[in-house]
Amino acid sequence: MTTSARRAALCAALTERGLAGVLVTTLVNVRYLTGFTGSNGALLVPVEGEPVFFTDGRYRDQADEELPDVAHVIGRDLLTGAAERMASGRWGLETHTLSVDGHHRLVELAPDVELVAAGRVVEELREVKDEPEIEALRRACDISTQALEQVLAGPLVGRTERAVARDLEARMLDLGAEAIAFETILACGDHTAIPHHHPTDRVLARGDLLKIDFGARVDGYHADCTRTVVLGPADDWQKEVHAAVRESQAAGLELLREGVAVSASDAAARGSLQSTGWLDAFTTGLGHGVGLEIHEDPFIAGSHAGKLSSRTVLTMEPGIYVPGRGGVRIEDTVLVTAGAPEVLTTMTKDLLEIG
Amino acid sequence: MTTSARRAALCAALTERGLAGVLVTTLVNVRYLTGFTGSNGALLVPVEGEPVFFTDGRYRDQADEELPDVAHVIGRDLLTGAAERMASGRWGLETHTLSVDGHHRLVELAPDVELVAAGRVVEELREVKDEPEIEALRRACDISTQALEQVLAGPLVGRTERAVARDLEARMLDLGAEAIAFETILACGDHTAIPHHHPTDRVLARGDLLKIDFGARVDGYHADCTRTVVLGPADDWQKEVHAAVRESQAAGLELLREGVAVSASDAAARGSLQSTGWLDAFTTGLGHGVGLEIHEDPFIAGSHAGKLSSRTVLTMEPGIYVPGRGGVRIEDTVLVTAGAPEVLTTMTKDLLEIG
Repeated sequence: MTTSARRAALCAALTERGLAGVLVTTLVNVRYLTGFTGSNGALLVPVEGEPVFFTDGRYRDQADEELPDVAHVIGRDLLTGAAERMASGRWGLETHTLSVDGHHRLVELAPDVELVAAGRVVEELREVKDEPEIEALRRACDISTQALEQVLAGPLVGRTERAVARDLEARMLDLGAEAIAFETILACGDHTAIPHHHPTDRVLARGDLLKIDFGARVDGYHADCTRTVVLGPADDWQKEVHAAVRESQAAGLELLREGVAVSASDAAARGSLQSTGWLDAFTTGLGHGVGLEIHEDPFIAGSHAGKLSSRTVLTMEPGIYVPGRGGVRIEDTVLVTAGAPEVLTTMTKDLLEIG
Repeated sequence: MTTSARRAALCAALTERGLAGVLVTTLVNVRYLTGFTGSNGALLVPVEGEPVFFTDGRYRDQADEELPDVAHVIGRDLLTGAAERMASGRWGLETHTLSVDGHHRLVELAPDVELVAAGRVVEELREVKDEPEIEALRRACDISTQALEQVLAGPLVGRTERAVARDLEARMLDLGAEAIAFETILACGDHTAIPHHHPTDRVLARGDLLKIDFGARVDGYHADCTRTVVLGPADDWQKEVHAAVRESQAAGLELLREGVAVSASDAAARGSLQSTGWLDAFTTGLGHGVGLEIHEDPFIAGSHAGKLSSRTVLTMEPGIYVPGRGGVRIEDTVLVTAGAPEVLTTMTKDLLEIG
C-alpha cells in the first residue's frame, strides 16, 4: 500500500465523520500519510481535491524527494499556510496533540471555518498495518533477535550493564538497523526489579538475573523485545518467577487474535498471574501497539472497549518486579491474525542459564 | 543550583504574573524543575505551599530516587490528580504544548479554577543556565570535540558516510556520553549541500567536502557542533566557501554577548554573507539555544526582540548550501558572557585538508 492509498482510506474515514478534511499536525501521522521523515511538517487533507504539505526551508530538497506526489509549501509558519487553504466548511483538527495556542491561532486565521476534533482518526488507521509496514517490522524484529542471540553467546559475567547494552546496540546497527528503537533497558541483579532501568556501570555477576528490553528501528518502524536470563544455574526463585511470567504471556497471547476483545487478553494474562500469586508484583501495562512509534494505539488494558483486528502489531509484556530482589519480563512483538498471533521476535523464551 | 532553587525562581516569576501557580506538563520542563528523567510526568507548582509531582506506576521507584524532596502521586491519569489539587484562583497552563483535549479535560475537572496561559515561563528560566547545567554542557562539548578529533585522524577515504558516523557515535559513548545528542548528520561530496543529510552508504572520496554535524549528550544536556573538512587538498571553490562561512560565524559570534540584541548577531552574520555574495545560499536558521533540548529558546533571528543574557548557551551555525555542488557549515556551542562568548566546542575551525 502506498501513502496515496493511506490518504484515500483517511478520506473515507473523514467522509463518515462528515468532515470536509483534516489538518494533520502530528508529525508521525504526517510521515504515515506522506513518507516525510523530517522534524517539522503538517499535511492538509481535503476530502475533495488534493492534499498539501507544509514544511520549512531546511526540508525543501527532502520534500521534493520524499513527497514527489504531493504539492508542498515552504514557509516558516505551517499553520498560516494551512489556514489559507481551508475552504469554508467543517474541518477536523488533531486536538489530542495540537496545542491550545496552535488551536487559537487557527481559529483566528480561519474565522469562517468550523474547526472540530477529528479524534484519533489517523492513529486508528495506523493500528492495522499494510504490507510495507509489516515487512519493516519483520526486519526490525529479525535484526533484534539476531543481535540478542549474538550477545547472549557471551561472555557476559564481568562486563558492565552499560558495556553489554552498547554491544547489543552496535550489533543491531551492524545488522542493518537504521537506529536503535529506544534507549536499551539492561539490568542485572536487583536492578531487574526496576521496570525501566537505565544501564549503569554495575558489573554482571554469576547468579544474577539479566533483563534486556531493546529493539532495532528499520524504515521508521520499531521492534520491541524483552528477555530475562540467568548468569549461571537458576535458583528456584528465579525459575518460579520466570515460569509465572512465561505462563502469563502465553495466556495473553492465546487471546490476541482477530475479533477478540482487547480486554480479554489483559484479563487472561492477569488471571494467570493471579493464579500463581504474583499479580501484585505486575506494575506496568501489559502491551501496546508498535509501529512508527514505540508506543502507539492500541494499548492493551481491561478498560479497552474494542476488538482486535488482523494485521495489528502489538507487544505482550507481562512482568514480575520485586523491589530489592529482582524481576523478570518477557516481551514479544507479535502480529495479530485470524489464528494464533505470529511472534516476530523469535528468540527463545526458555529460561537460559548462561555460563 | 538545585532543582528547588529553580522552583523558587519559577514561583517568583509566577507571582509577577499574578498566578496562584502553574501546572507544568511539558516533560522537559518537569525534568528541569525536578530532575525526573522518565517519559511521563507533570508537576503542580503552587506559589504558596509545596509542589506535587504526578507520574504512573512504571516510575514509582524512580520517582522515589530522583525526587526525594517532592511529594509524588502515582496514577494513570496525571491531569485528574493535578486538577484535584488546584485550589481556586488563577492558575497557569503551558498552552504552547498542552493539547486542546487536555485543556478541555482540565476545564471540566477544575470548574472553579481560572485557567490561563502561563506562557513559556519555564523555558524563559531555562535560557539562563546554572552551574550544574554549564558543567554538563561543557562535558558534552569536550567529549564531542575529542571524538571528532579521533575520527578525523583517519583513515576516512574509502569508508561510507554511515560507517564514519557510527564510528564517531561509538567514540562519544566510549568517552562517557550517556547517548548521542541527535542522529548524526554526515555528508560527503554534493550531499554536503543538503543541510540535514542522513548518512548513506556512499563512499568518501578524495577531493570531497566532508560535513559532520553531531554531538554528545551528558546528564540530559546536548552538545551541537559542525565541522566541514576536505579529503585531500582543497580547491579554490572549497576554500572560498569555507572562508565565507567562517567569516560569517566570526561576525555573528562577535555580537553574541550579554546585553546585546539577539537580532544584532543575526544581522552581522547575514551581513557578512551578503558582503561575500553568499547570502542566498544560506537557507537555515543561524542558531538556537541548547540544553535539555537540542533546540530550545532563544532562537537567533532578525525578528527576535530580546537581548542576550550571560550564561545563555547557544549555537552559531551559518552555512552555504549549493545544490548539486556542495556546502559548508561551521557550528559551535557557545556560552554567552559579558565579554567574548566562550566556545565550548573547541575543535579547530581551520579548513583541514585530510590526506
